[in-house]
Amino acid sequence: MPSLVHYPLDPASRLIRLMCAEYGVPLDLEEIRPWLREEALLELNPAATLPILFTDADVPIVGIMATIHAVEDFYTPDVAGGLFPLDPLDRAEMWRLVEWTLVKLNDEVTRYLIEEKIAKRDQRGATPDPAVLRAAKANLNEHLLYFNWLLASRKWLAGPDMSLADFALAAHLSTLDYMGDIDWGKAVETRDWYSRLKSRPAFRTLLNDRVVAMPPSRGYADLDF
Amino acid sequence: MPSLVHYPLDPASRLIRLMCAEYGVPLDLEEIRPWLREEALLELNPAATLPILFTDADVPIVGIMATIHAVEDFYTPDVAGGLFPLDPLDRAEMWRLVEWTLVKLNDEVTRYLIEEKIAKRDQRGATPDPAVLRAAKANLNEHLLYFNWLLASRKWLAGPDMSLADFALAAHLSTLDYMGDIDWGKAVETRDWYSRLKSRPAFRTLLNDRVVAMPPSRGYADLDF
Repeated sequence: MPSLVHYPLDPASRLIRLMCAEYGVPLDLEEIRPWLREEALLELNPAATLPILFTDADVPIVGIMATIHAVEDFYTPDVAGGLFPLDPLDRAEMWRLVEWTLVKLNDEVTRYLIEEKIAKRDQRGATPDPAVLRAAKANLNEHLLYFNWLLASRKWLAGPDMSLADFALAAHLSTLDYMGDIDWGKAVETRDWYSRLKSRPAFRTLLNDRVVAMPPSRGYADLDF
Repeated sequence: MPSLVHYPLDPASRLIRLMCAEYGVPLDLEEIRPWLREEALLELNPAATLPILFTDADVPIVGIMATIHAVEDFYTPDVAGGLFPLDPLDRAEMWRLVEWTLVKLNDEVTRYLIEEKIAKRDQRGATPDPAVLRAAKANLNEHLLYFNWLLASRKWLAGPDMSLADFALAAHLSTLDYMGDIDWGKAVETRDWYSRLKSRPAFRTLLNDRVVAMPPSRGYADLDF
């Protein structure tokens, strides 16, 4: 069975867990806190990023770009059933929004909130910086406006069909939702879209995640939130 | 002919120019300064990132992830001649290092130096912040140590064959080299590798780039530097 070195609330790890669940690939999960930069992690990945996938070949596949492509290469059930649109121009729109999520949203929102709310719990005496939390939440609201606008005229994020872009954004929003950072009342179109994704069997594993001494926000695991 | 909206010293734009040159695809180039966030750019790409590729279909392909895949989809001359290794595990190592360059190196080094040295020229009265320049250069030296270490035992960045990872790193280093930020004397293995890439015909177009009132560093265009 392939195994994944991950952290439960790391959005990149969540994306790979979602892809594998959607493709029916069972995963052994090994949890690690990447911000501790432990030797075992640095030996696998000097960049200290997640996820790291061990396929049956027992060779580590490192980082989100490599693991996305490896899951496609090794585990897509069949061409028509995959998360990559068949038309190259549709795939380009998917990649645009995957990049938006993995780079821009991560850079302006998710990584700050994970650092402040989660990683700092492992630094003695450190507390979240309210100015950073405020800036990240303001950025998140701008992103949600854009997603609302896109989803007002599209069934799925990148077009008429569900794709990797939906899973990438859902992975990030699910982490933000766990931490209670999303005001769903202000994000109606995004909520409707997220509600459809959340009902998929692939999502169940994420909704059962719990971080020690940090319960999820009310509604995190409810399909009717 | 396909056209590319780019900025000459933007490393992501440079990567696509290198790929297209390597594949023998002529490009019309349209220059834009993304930090000005002009309406024409925001209409094409609300993220205000480059590059943007117009294929013959005249549909914009937006961002580095989408353009890399579009160039592969539309313009790879043949499977054996492409920049993607044929073996999936070799491709995984390529993507690991592409991500290292496009995300980590960009995030810790390149984007700061472009912001301080180039974008600030368009802000009246702004000057580069010496503390930021110092931090970015210290980070760059750490990255170069890692690349030296890799290239001491590998002919190309991701293994025995040249790949997209080489072009991604060369695109970033060529921008840093233009600005005079690389101390090649301390990066012998990386210099030897860069020298081989720089001699390729695909590289010529980059070496002729000139930014107004900002001449390149001595040695930038020399094949023997």
